[in-house]
Amino acid sequence: MEDTVFSKIIAGQIPCHRIYEDEHVLAFLDAGPLSEGHTLVIPKEPATSLDELSDDSAAAVGRVLPRVCRAVTRATGATSYNVLQNNGADAGQAVMHVHFHVIPRYPDRSTGTGLGIGWKPQPLDDEHAAPLAAKIADAITD
Amino acid sequence: MEDTVFSKIIAGQIPCHRIYEDEHVLAFLDAGPLSEGHTLVIPKEPATSLDELSDDSAAAVGRVLPRVCRAVTRATGATSYNVLQNNGADAGQAVMHVHFHVIPRYPDRSTGTGLGIGWKPQPLDDEHAAPLAAKIADAITD
Repeated sequence: MEDTVFSKIIAGQIPCHRIYEDEHVLAFLDAGPLSEGHTLVIPKEPATSLDELSDDSAAAVGRVLPRVCRAVTRATGATSYNVLQNNGADAGQAVMHVHFHVIPRYPDRSTGTGLGIGWKPQPLDDEHAAPLAAKIADAITD
Repeated sequence: MEDTVFSKIIAGQIPCHRIYEDEHVLAFLDAGPLSEGHTLVIPKEPATSLDELSDDSAAAVGRVLPRVCRAVTRATGATSYNVLQNNGADAGQAVMHVHFHVIPRYPDRSTGTGLGIGWKPQPLDDEHAAPLAAKIADAITD
């Protein structure tokens, strides 16, 4: 895996506004925030996308996420927030190292929330869904 | 916490197209999919938003997420996907039980990806960021 801005931040070669760090996880302010308090939570393990992450590293990130969310909401006063994690250029991933965005939302637009989410659901047909769920379930491995 | 459609699915009172289940975690197809293979990963622990989730439950969900992502991409052929978790009505949360969306993306639009993401970042001013990061870091507790 090639170096990214995040691997350089982990290595201390690029500075960040750090919020939390342990053996497996680092959290810091996003340098291009969508709103006040926009924070990134990343594994130290080098992995491009979430599907490549080891169980241990993923569990460590998962465990830290609620702590960071609590801290961000406490510090900013935000009552709503999105956690977003993009994998692949087609999904909007810009830095090729796994990262979770914690993006606070504010009722007062002046605080700024530059995240827009469009949602166009389709109906789920049971006849289509049953074999699809079975196919995905069969693909679950260690 | 009041019953939700997800607590009823966990209790077996409402059916779902199940993909994965263990002591702490359940994964199943979203009943209003944004794209083929749109999957939900939820903790069995009752919690409205991610900040309310216990360490153990959050670690269990974190550990399972990459496994589900691998299975969804293997089964659908999707190479890009978004993981999205909404907290609070202002953030688009519709069911008041913590849930992670795994939403595959396809280059071929005919497969359908009903998720739109708008991204309007702001610059991060170091003089503003340093005390903000310190304030959030100070709010990190167990």
